[in-house]
Amino acid sequence: MSDSPLSYAHDNHDRFLNELIELVSIPSVSTLPEHRPDMRRAARWLEDRLNDIGVSAETAGSEDYPLVYGEWLKAPGKPTVLVYGHYDVQPAEPLELWTTPPFQPQVRNGNLYGRGSSDDKGQTLTSIYAAESYLRTAGSLPLNVKFILEGQEESGGAVIKEFVQQHSDRLKADTVQISDGHMFGPGIPTLDVGLRGIVYTEIQARGASHDLHSGLYGGVAPNPLNALAWVISSLKGPDGHITIPGFYDSVQSVSDDVLQAWSRLPVDQVEFVKEETGISELAGEKDYTPFQRMWARPTLDVHGIAGGFVGEGAKTVIPAEATAKVSMRIVPDQKAEDVFRQYREAVLKLAPPGIELEVRLIHGDDPVLVPQDSSYIAAAQQAMQATFGRPGVPVRSGGSIPIVGIFKDQLGLNSVLMGWGLPDDNLHAPNEKFRVQNFYDGIDATIRFWDMAAGSTRASA
Amino acid sequence: MSDSPLSYAHDNHDRFLNELIELVSIPSVSTLPEHRPDMRRAARWLEDRLNDIGVSAETAGSEDYPLVYGEWLKAPGKPTVLVYGHYDVQPAEPLELWTTPPFQPQVRNGNLYGRGSSDDKGQTLTSIYAAESYLRTAGSLPLNVKFILEGQEESGGAVIKEFVQQHSDRLKADTVQISDGHMFGPGIPTLDVGLRGIVYTEIQARGASHDLHSGLYGGVAPNPLNALAWVISSLKGPDGHITIPGFYDSVQSVSDDVLQAWSRLPVDQVEFVKEETGISELAGEKDYTPFQRMWARPTLDVHGIAGGFVGEGAKTVIPAEATAKVSMRIVPDQKAEDVFRQYREAVLKLAPPGIELEVRLIHGDDPVLVPQDSSYIAAAQQAMQATFGRPGVPVRSGGSIPIVGIFKDQLGLNSVLMGWGLPDDNLHAPNEKFRVQNFYDGIDATIRFWDMAAGSTRASA
Repeated sequence: MSDSPLSYAHDNHDRFLNELIELVSIPSVSTLPEHRPDMRRAARWLEDRLNDIGVSAETAGSEDYPLVYGEWLKAPGKPTVLVYGHYDVQPAEPLELWTTPPFQPQVRNGNLYGRGSSDDKGQTLTSIYAAESYLRTAGSLPLNVKFILEGQEESGGAVIKEFVQQHSDRLKADTVQISDGHMFGPGIPTLDVGLRGIVYTEIQARGASHDLHSGLYGGVAPNPLNALAWVISSLKGPDGHITIPGFYDSVQSVSDDVLQAWSRLPVDQVEFVKEETGISELAGEKDYTPFQRMWARPTLDVHGIAGGFVGEGAKTVIPAEATAKVSMRIVPDQKAEDVFRQYREAVLKLAPPGIELEVRLIHGDDPVLVPQDSSYIAAAQQAMQATFGRPGVPVRSGGSIPIVGIFKDQLGLNSVLMGWGLPDDNLHAPNEKFRVQNFYDGIDATIRFWDMAAGSTRASA
Repeated sequence: MSDSPLSYAHDNHDRFLNELIELVSIPSVSTLPEHRPDMRRAARWLEDRLNDIGVSAETAGSEDYPLVYGEWLKAPGKPTVLVYGHYDVQPAEPLELWTTPPFQPQVRNGNLYGRGSSDDKGQTLTSIYAAESYLRTAGSLPLNVKFILEGQEESGGAVIKEFVQQHSDRLKADTVQISDGHMFGPGIPTLDVGLRGIVYTEIQARGASHDLHSGLYGGVAPNPLNALAWVISSLKGPDGHITIPGFYDSVQSVSDDVLQAWSRLPVDQVEFVKEETGISELAGEKDYTPFQRMWARPTLDVHGIAGGFVGEGAKTVIPAEATAKVSMRIVPDQKAEDVFRQYREAVLKLAPPGIELEVRLIHGDDPVLVPQDSSYIAAAQQAMQATFGRPGVPVRSGGSIPIVGIFKDQLGLNSVLMGWGLPDDNLHAPNEKFRVQNFYDGIDATIRFWDMAAGSTRASA
């Protein structure tokens, strides 16, 4: 029998890893309707795990995107941590680029490969195993813990939004803990202090009433694909500057202090990005450092363009319609709602002759800045120091975790963002992986974080 | 028993139509490898029909794209017509836009709907049934006829190119007859006197070594989709002007005579195009009339862009690579080879930072102009006058029929281009159709054309 939570965790590494492999094997892709049954399987898996270790859990919210909620509240007088994670994953396509199948996870070179291993199943399990390590040794947690594990992070998150609104009393806590991000590098723990928001849209372009032959009508027929190319490149050219009127008006500049902190990180920013991505030359705004461009500047990307013919060989079609998925990352103090309005107006004005454009918001989330002066941030820093031998680097993250804004707005709670992924984890891409050591370190750091946070003054009853 | 070829043809309309339905039912899509067996079935079908009626036929050239060659040469001292057609068809996708399945042809409102009904199976059969109508009544043709029916028109035509080069003696003739185009409108027969050429290409853009998350790397990661949008819209913007240096240098302007002939056609050009296509406003070069833009001006179109995510919902991926299919229609005296060189150079210069571009030629064909002063053109005009009550309108066609250039270069032969399609036949698009009356008129006109051409002076032995 292990006698401390930490030694229990160490003794159970192999089983924890095998269970993570089991969870990653369930293809819980929330954006694809054919995976609805897998979503329910993954939710039940988590619900069962929590109940097994003594955290009273249930699924709630939605049949299609079930939310797993669990709580252990037997530490009266102690603070309450609301732990957030998500078990849904991105689609795995293109499958042919995976070395091993995305839902048959495999450990190679100290990494667990599989869709969702890092984003966010592996990270979600670090907290569950921290709880197990306490409950199976001390028989109790040092503070109260509420788990809220969603199944719709990769596709809009409407279910958790509604759940939080409807259960704000039940979700009362002193802080939120989120592990859905990454460390700056192996052994360099990180505290996210800011997150970009997102405005994800679809532009549909329509020309003729039916597909046309480019031989017969090329020269007079409006081509929806050419039109989308025009719109997209007019919104942002190779200089990275976005031309939407008013777009930059509320963009906050980064303080010199913060810029200096970033420049003191132990890397050459350009080389760092090149190494992580394999790109030959950085894109974007030349007047800003790479970290500024990634963390504190808005940008615009096309994710896919549908329409016409992309099969083998040649087809000389001018399609009747085409669609582009375009998103913007936004930064404090931009608001998703305002940016979408400016964007929509700018896009519609760019319609070439004969082309009708329609612009649709798929989802939008505001950016977030996290205050750094709380006792929970201090506890997180101590936990990281004890686990990694150094405190967390306060960085911003380019990706949005919309739930951070929701917890702030609906519950008045700030989040502690300690991520255990790595920049090269291939999130949303083939060969996603999670470093096994980070999985184990994440469990240790969470065990320590709760211990240290238990001594914090409670902000609420 | 019918006693003349024309009355035989009329008596057999129903059977001819049923046989056309049989041929259209074979999905002989040359661009898709899974249809190779259907290619062979369609070729054998034609070979059998020709042999049945007494035209000695065989398949040749290629296992994957068999070419059907047949000849009836029992009219010594009479001219020889080389009849060209093709039995391969475009892919039928997107299938969900067809009212009835593309390979289950159906007659509705006097039209036969099905992939390949107009392009070019129905038109190809007009000549075979003209031959049958002679051979089953007179027992002979009024002149010598060679049939060359290819299976690779929609995917490059390398097989027929090689066949013509290798068999120039056997293919000797006095004129070529091609029915792979369309009439100006119902009851308005047409003689094509010029055809645009084509340069069909693929541009591949590569950025990072693997797909990236736009949240983490958006702002520094070169996006191959944004890059393609930039390249395409830089090559041609909404004004329809192509910016490739030197591109227009060898573009011939159209003579005032010809322009006036076109403006005398019984239509408002803008309304004509709008009606055929359902577009709200014409695209392209404002300084040129619609017919000029379609027939005598080069243009550039994107046919499809692959890469990233186009499924349901949202995926925030910056793909590692993306590919665009881009073609140019070219006009006399542009040369496909020169245009591709100019284009490639211009594209490569447009590469944004961090993006590597590769440009590949899929196929290219030079444009063609046909001289109008031959006895075969005169015979065609008489045949059209007798069939439709008016002579053929001398127009140009926007599409390329590459084989016309090959017959000219390799065999020294000009082509008579009498097409029986209509502009709204939905070639290369869902719901392709062929007007049944045009099928019957095409047979009649061919019977008459051969009769009148038989009196022509033979150009060769």
